[in-house]
Amino acid sequence: MGKHSIEETLKQNPKRFIEVHTYKKEDPLTLSLQEKGVRVHISPKQKLTAIVQSDSHQGFIAKVQEREFLSPKTFLQTAPEKSLVLMCDAIQDPQNFGAILRAAECFGVDAVIYSTNRNVALTPVVSKASVGASELVPLIPVSNLADTMKKFQDGGYFAVATEISDKAQPLATFEFPEQTLLIVSAEGAGIQSLLSKKADFHLYIPMRGSIDSLNVSQATAVFLSHWR
Amino acid sequence: MGKHSIEETLKQNPKRFIEVHTYKKEDPLTLSLQEKGVRVHISPKQKLTAIVQSDSHQGFIAKVQEREFLSPKTFLQTAPEKSLVLMCDAIQDPQNFGAILRAAECFGVDAVIYSTNRNVALTPVVSKASVGASELVPLIPVSNLADTMKKFQDGGYFAVATEISDKAQPLATFEFPEQTLLIVSAEGAGIQSLLSKKADFHLYIPMRGSIDSLNVSQATAVFLSHWR
Repeated sequence: MGKHSIEETLKQNPKRFIEVHTYKKEDPLTLSLQEKGVRVHISPKQKLTAIVQSDSHQGFIAKVQEREFLSPKTFLQTAPEKSLVLMCDAIQDPQNFGAILRAAECFGVDAVIYSTNRNVALTPVVSKASVGASELVPLIPVSNLADTMKKFQDGGYFAVATEISDKAQPLATFEFPEQTLLIVSAEGAGIQSLLSKKADFHLYIPMRGSIDSLNVSQATAVFLSHWR
Repeated sequence: MGKHSIEETLKQNPKRFIEVHTYKKEDPLTLSLQEKGVRVHISPKQKLTAIVQSDSHQGFIAKVQEREFLSPKTFLQTAPEKSLVLMCDAIQDPQNFGAILRAAECFGVDAVIYSTNRNVALTPVVSKASVGASELVPLIPVSNLADTMKKFQDGGYFAVATEISDKAQPLATFEFPEQTLLIVSAEGAGIQSLLSKKADFHLYIPMRGSIDSLNVSQATAVFLSHWR
């Protein structure tokens, strides 16, 4: 759902659309969709709200073909030599997960790993907050993050856990490994201890205020900007 | 409203509280507030929702003494020699403004300037999204951003407009002036042309994806992290 999300999908990959519902008959986006041959239904607002179970759709919702997902194995077979893969440890807020996917797309991350049982799924709210990035970034949903981390480490990646702790080094002087698995987690909960223990590096953003930490989507953008 | 926001205010400046409403009688936060002598009313959920006109209060809302605001003149009389002041150009989304204030606090920004007529005000949603930073960061609300920018430039500050344009330089190699006025705006609208024209520097975050830009609160965190 959401205007930007649907605009981006139209720009990047219009064949993904199965159908769009809108009540904005004359909107430029409606016309662009129709020009590209996308099936557009003019439906009442209430119907849109009922389908996505949210009223934040800005008048546009789309049904798209299910996107392709990668497995760790498939990804690792052709992993780039210089690479960053982001691992989301239990990001449950859909706004945050969407904004993280947006940052991942903006900075050209190679893939995003998330847990199928401890992370929010690809809901309409996530898609909207990601302004379409949820349809663009290669995704690796997995059932076990610790196993997956091990596979990436065996495949040549260094695991970098982002956390504020004694063993963490400051971002400014950190040299990212050529193949980096960057692990981020919701503020508060922090990275699960198994991942933190087995990580190769620990990294934090030096700050100076009295509030503990940035929002996880802001922190992720900061880490990715330094990497890029 | 919001648990973290009230926790931070309790930690940083408990004298600000006039009263707190909650329906969570046994919550550790309720007990901490009472221990510190804050007047806590046990009120039904619906009353909380009615007062803040939002149901995202997480069971806690507070009435606090109005915070102090600074004028450009007062601030400039004692401006630090090394300083960054953030200017928000028409940030209308309360989540974004809150997250920007949070980042400003985390990175120790000296003050945040915002427009009293073109920016969202300090609403409960802003306060919650800022996890209390809206009560901690020095704020300079002004009626005219262009006049204010001129005052800061006359006072020794260099204005740095963040925007993607031909004249913008990449963040990685940018040396922040000793006294920086950093101007951020909502993605999409961009910085108003008068501010952009009169700015001393133009700055952008190099990216690599197909989506145009980060969320403004993420971009602000990236700029501030590099500055810090």
